[in-house]
Amino acid sequence: MSCFWGHAVIFLYTDFGAEGPYLAQVQAVLAAESSGVPCFNLLSNAPAGDPRRAAYLLAGLAGALPSGALVLGVVDPGVGGERLPIVVEAGGRRFVGPDNGLFSRVAARDCAARACRIDWRPARLSSSFHGRDLFAPVAARLAAGVDVPLTEVPVSGLVGSDWPDELAEVVYADAYGNLFTGLRGDRVADDAIVEAGGRRLHRARTFSAVPVGEAFWYRNSSGLVEIAVNGGSARERLGLGVGAIVTVLRPSP
Amino acid sequence: MSCFWGHAVIFLYTDFGAEGPYLAQVQAVLAAESSGVPCFNLLSNAPAGDPRRAAYLLAGLAGALPSGALVLGVVDPGVGGERLPIVVEAGGRRFVGPDNGLFSRVAARDCAARACRIDWRPARLSSSFHGRDLFAPVAARLAAGVDVPLTEVPVSGLVGSDWPDELAEVVYADAYGNLFTGLRGDRVADDAIVEAGGRRLHRARTFSAVPVGEAFWYRNSSGLVEIAVNGGSARERLGLGVGAIVTVLRPSP
Amino acid sequence: MSCFWGHAVIFLYTDFGAEGPYLAQVQAVLAAESSGVPCFNLLSNAPAGDPRRAAYLLAGLAGALPSGALVLGVVDPGVGGERLPIVVEAGGRRFVGPDNGLFSRVAARDCAARACRIDWRPARLSSSFHGRDLFAPVAARLAAGVDVPLTEVPVSGLVGSDWPDELAEVVYADAYGNLFTGLRGDRVADDAIVEAGGRRLHRARTFSAVPVGEAFWYRNSSGLVEIAVNGGSARERLGLGVGAIVTVLRPSP
Repeated sequence: MSCFWGHAVIFLYTDFGAEGPYLAQVQAVLAAESSGVPCFNLLSNAPAGDPRRAAYLLAGLAGALPSGALVLGVVDPGVGGERLPIVVEAGGRRFVGPDNGLFSRVAARDCAARACRIDWRPARLSSSFHGRDLFAPVAARLAAGVDVPLTEVPVSGLVGSDWPDELAEVVYADAYGNLFTGLRGDRVADDAIVEAGGRRLHRARTFSAVPVGEAFWYRNSSGLVEIAVNGGSARERLGLGVGAIVTVLRPSP
Repeated sequence: MSCFWGHAVIFLYTDFGAEGPYLAQVQAVLAAESSGVPCFNLLSNAPAGDPRRAAYLLAGLAGALPSGALVLGVVDPGVGGERLPIVVEAGGRRFVGPDNGLFSRVAARDCAARACRIDWRPARLSSSFHGRDLFAPVAARLAAGVDVPLTEVPVSGLVGSDWPDELAEVVYADAYGNLFTGLRGDRVADDAIVEAGGRRLHRARTFSAVPVGEAFWYRNSSGLVEIAVNGGSARERLGLGVGAIVTVLRPSP
Repeated sequence: MSCFWGHAVIFLYTDFGAEGPYLAQVQAVLAAESSGVPCFNLLSNAPAGDPRRAAYLLAGLAGALPSGALVLGVVDPGVGGERLPIVVEAGGRRFVGPDNGLFSRVAARDCAARACRIDWRPARLSSSFHGRDLFAPVAARLAAGVDVPLTEVPVSGLVGSDWPDELAEVVYADAYGNLFTGLRGDRVADDAIVEAGGRRLHRARTFSAVPVGEAFWYRNSSGLVEIAVNGGSARERLGLGVGAIVTVLRPSP
């Protein structure tokens, strides 16, 4: 990882919750050790303890981040156990966090992706908060251009490297009740029908293109297939949540 | 909008939710394009998809913001449709967002208010996230003193310019369960009785002025009539939420 | 409080909620008056209106903050009433907020703790938002090294100075449903059994040390005894919330 990275920016991708007390502890470490690299809280309600669904969601969201961004990703149910701390470089961005599949999808979408094991350890490492004690200092140093002891490892050996390219499930519900799936928007035809919860949904370009109260699917601002309702909550109207199965039906020609 | 604006500060007023993934994307654009203008998340749970109630709430909250503040307001259910992007200048503050009534109340409370249509468009505009793609770059540039192509339009032509001056409803419930109304505190007499959910409430100066568990109304720190319970949640005790009707009864003389 | 404080950092500890509209108003005052001291939102869902439980939680969280940190603590149900505004200096950190017990536990854990009454008042003081109008300007000035009129008062006279050293209750549930207690981790033996909700729990070092779905107790990253479930929510699995009684059983020798 010797290539030069320009003006960095850090994005936090966690299941910490926005209200506390974990985000601020990580942010304070980043601020103290990154010489003022700006830091934004991309997501604090990633699928909790669920690196698999969080990986598909991250692969969508990461595509909307600026080139050169560094993502500190902490969805880490195995904290304190055997899983390795890693850095992944993919799509012009870097990702720091646990090797539990969380970064496997961003890695899989860049054939030039690289991965490193983090060899550095802090003087004091809690058994349950590596986000603060290990990943944040590493992310801060990398963002600030400071050397961190790393050993390159094969991307094909990362946990999750054998997972499928897409996940035909709901992986996230936003504050409006819109349902993000693990399906890539650019792989689904305009006239495809998305089936979820026994409902067959057509594509619309955006919310206001369908009547109020109507459910539809569209390619969202993160590049994922999203199920939504104009003027309402798809989560409530369709009674679906994270983990709900989604099927793409292509009309017969 | 040629007048000079001093040291700016940006406040976000949205229905995005605090947990993600929209706030950070907007904040990152603002940081990148505003040369370091400080940015604060004023509200991320404005009435969702409800520019009308959000307008009355904003008119209250804006009064507590510093002069010169720029508010990026995104409660935008019509995103991707026909509604115009606008800038409103009122009360010594600026407001950037959609012309759907959201800024109509701040405009109505300043007879010298001005409005402009935003003529600038980004190279890449998603159909569902103009907050990130259009309003944030415009807000950043205005805050940084950079010229943006604007065309002045009559304030009287803004959506919502014909809405009533006050809204006798609950427009927001805060984290404590306090109920903000769309009524202006300075228009209600001290001895007025506020009726809501079949209860008649008297005014108190502050929480600790009434016994624990008692409901009352008061003029809150945003200048709005608020219904509250000392040591409890008015939302739960009175069983009221956003949209509940409020009536002001003036005692007979 | 004449001793020198180095590069300060401010942490907000409140029951404001993360979504608004209170945090940003406080943050904006801090930014405007502290000459750029960094500020982090440590907790915005402290036990609402409950300075007692909030005090035990704060005593744990404060231990993980950097030396020199200034905590702006606002859990202030008595706002607008008789309670005094104070500054407490304890454990190498400073705390600004109401004298309602909130800082009594951090003070009690440092025999060299000091306390001051805040004599400064702003030109305009709302009756319900001293966090913004009084505590934030004072915190900002102290953090920036600006003199604030203070009068030293005896720590033994603070509200809550007679509270017990530990609180054998759940004082907080985090976003995962982990249950923080008011018990100090370093005072409980490794082989102690923690009883809560009729369940007897053994200690584990960390989550992944027990089978998925199993409840246990451990010393969390804030130094408190925490009840958790590997891969699940202790709050849901055990049906416990803030205020639930916890008992420490020491095995017979």
